[in-house]
Amino acid sequence: MEMHFFGTGAAVPSKERNVTALALRFTQNGGNVWLFDCGEATQHQILRSTITLSKIDRIFITHLHGDHIFGLPGLLGSRSFQGGDKPLTLYGPPGIKRFVDAVLSTSGTHLRYPLEVIEIEEEGKILENSPFSVCVKKLEHGIDSFGFRVEEADQPGPLKVEKLKEMGVSPGPLYRKLKEGKKVRLDDGRTLNGKEFRGHDIPGRKIAIHGDTRMSDSAIELSRNADLVVHEATFSKEQEELAYDYYHSTTEQAASVAKKANAKRLIITHISSRYQEEDVARLLKEAKSVFENTEIASDDAIYEIPKNS
Amino acid sequence: MEMHFFGTGAAVPSKERNVTALALRFTQNGGNVWLFDCGEATQHQILRSTITLSKIDRIFITHLHGDHIFGLPGLLGSRSFQGGDKPLTLYGPPGIKRFVDAVLSTSGTHLRYPLEVIEIEEEGKILENSPFSVCVKKLEHGIDSFGFRVEEADQPGPLKVEKLKEMGVSPGPLYRKLKEGKKVRLDDGRTLNGKEFRGHDIPGRKIAIHGDTRMSDSAIELSRNADLVVHEATFSKEQEELAYDYYHSTTEQAASVAKKANAKRLIITHISSRYQEEDVARLLKEAKSVFENTEIASDDAIYEIPKNS
Repeated sequence: MEMHFFGTGAAVPSKERNVTALALRFTQNGGNVWLFDCGEATQHQILRSTITLSKIDRIFITHLHGDHIFGLPGLLGSRSFQGGDKPLTLYGPPGIKRFVDAVLSTSGTHLRYPLEVIEIEEEGKILENSPFSVCVKKLEHGIDSFGFRVEEADQPGPLKVEKLKEMGVSPGPLYRKLKEGKKVRLDDGRTLNGKEFRGHDIPGRKIAIHGDTRMSDSAIELSRNADLVVHEATFSKEQEELAYDYYHSTTEQAASVAKKANAKRLIITHISSRYQEEDVARLLKEAKSVFENTEIASDDAIYEIPKNS
Repeated sequence: MEMHFFGTGAAVPSKERNVTALALRFTQNGGNVWLFDCGEATQHQILRSTITLSKIDRIFITHLHGDHIFGLPGLLGSRSFQGGDKPLTLYGPPGIKRFVDAVLSTSGTHLRYPLEVIEIEEEGKILENSPFSVCVKKLEHGIDSFGFRVEEADQPGPLKVEKLKEMGVSPGPLYRKLKEGKKVRLDDGRTLNGKEFRGHDIPGRKIAIHGDTRMSDSAIELSRNADLVVHEATFSKEQEELAYDYYHSTTEQAASVAKKANAKRLIITHISSRYQEEDVARLLKEAKSVFENTEIASDDAIYEIPKNS
């Protein structure tokens, strides 16, 4: 699984950072892509990447501010124009359907694929798409702003083949049943419980992707023990008051969320255009002083999210 | 006066051409800018140009297809975010107000400047902004698609100073009155008619900017004797049938419009993404075979539109 960033800026595009969008690419699963937020010119960024619009089958919108949704109409239209015919599901706060309907109808944009728009009314699980599920929590941003937690189901551990061989159980179809944790009756009368012949479960990956927010308990809860947390840090730690007033977070606060949640890794995004390339090292240092395993994303960044073992 | 292109492609952005937008920059008039169409990522293109959003005081939308308007919400918002506080007037087909209202309200975008939206109900003059005026004609595109003709008022010719001197009339305040075409009574009893002491009027510049259209009589009429015609050519001359079916024009047809209108100069835009950089010479040749003074715009092209003499 990979995470591709397409826009890592805040509010307005700058020469260095476009407005917000990122994608989860399921390398092992037909290469499907889930897009999170879609600021203006996200389709332009995707055009310069290895991802194609037709591979995007789910889009999750954290909140309705323009820098997170103004790229949606064009991307939906271009996906159709380029021949995409597979269904697309769009999740977002109440109002997202009105936005999409108004824009597509005014512009006479006809989609050749089925578009389902699901407005998220409450916290909890919004998607079960084995082995992945997606849960939502509300953050603190003045308007509805959601965080999404993508969870991969735990995988059963490996079969203890050596132990079975020692017990005189030869490889064959019953190994599969044991691997599935089932009880198996052998020809010699013995009954084996598969669960006793498996290593510990391999924990699935847990990824928390936050919309714009103040530092909040919700964000910490959403990030609990996550393998990867993506959190905004619109401001430097010196602008904590400004961050609070505008319902945003600082570098330190984003790092605190990851630390308090006992997360493994933090990627910071949504950097204000007041900061230039030369400020990034300082912003990163601020975050790392609280949570060492932090990175600040750039617009063309791709991060591997390895399977746990 | 300069014309800046920001997007010269059709329907979807490509690596070579963004979707449609161009600007008229009034170099002699405080540097105000009029924007014509606003495809997605127009603000991104402007960010890389010498134009600032706050200088844009009028936006003209030819029609409501997404590749001509999806950049509008972001541009309006960023103009405000960047501190633009001067009024902005937006002209477009019926429906443009609903589009803007729906998008700004859903996204909670508050503009710090007054935005007036004028829906164009019928052909004719929509703006008198001395010395410039703007007229509209309907084109042929399946939905309402407008062409805009920007006309600069003719300027009075230079005063015939030598002739006046020969008649014993010395320079002074009365020269200004004569230059204005007024009648002046001299101390010696003679009466001079200013109009008889001026060279021929200097014709103002006339620029026709078309929305998407089939080749049409309206386009020819709008382009009559224009100094500059901007016309779409989505297709090569070989795709004339396709152009007709999709309400677009070919290179040859765009050139025919300029020729039949007795225009001086043609700039072609709105090139389908099926054509790459290496096809441009061929497309240009097709147009030039009909109308020699043709250019094909690129996304970063700036054209000087010199005053007439």
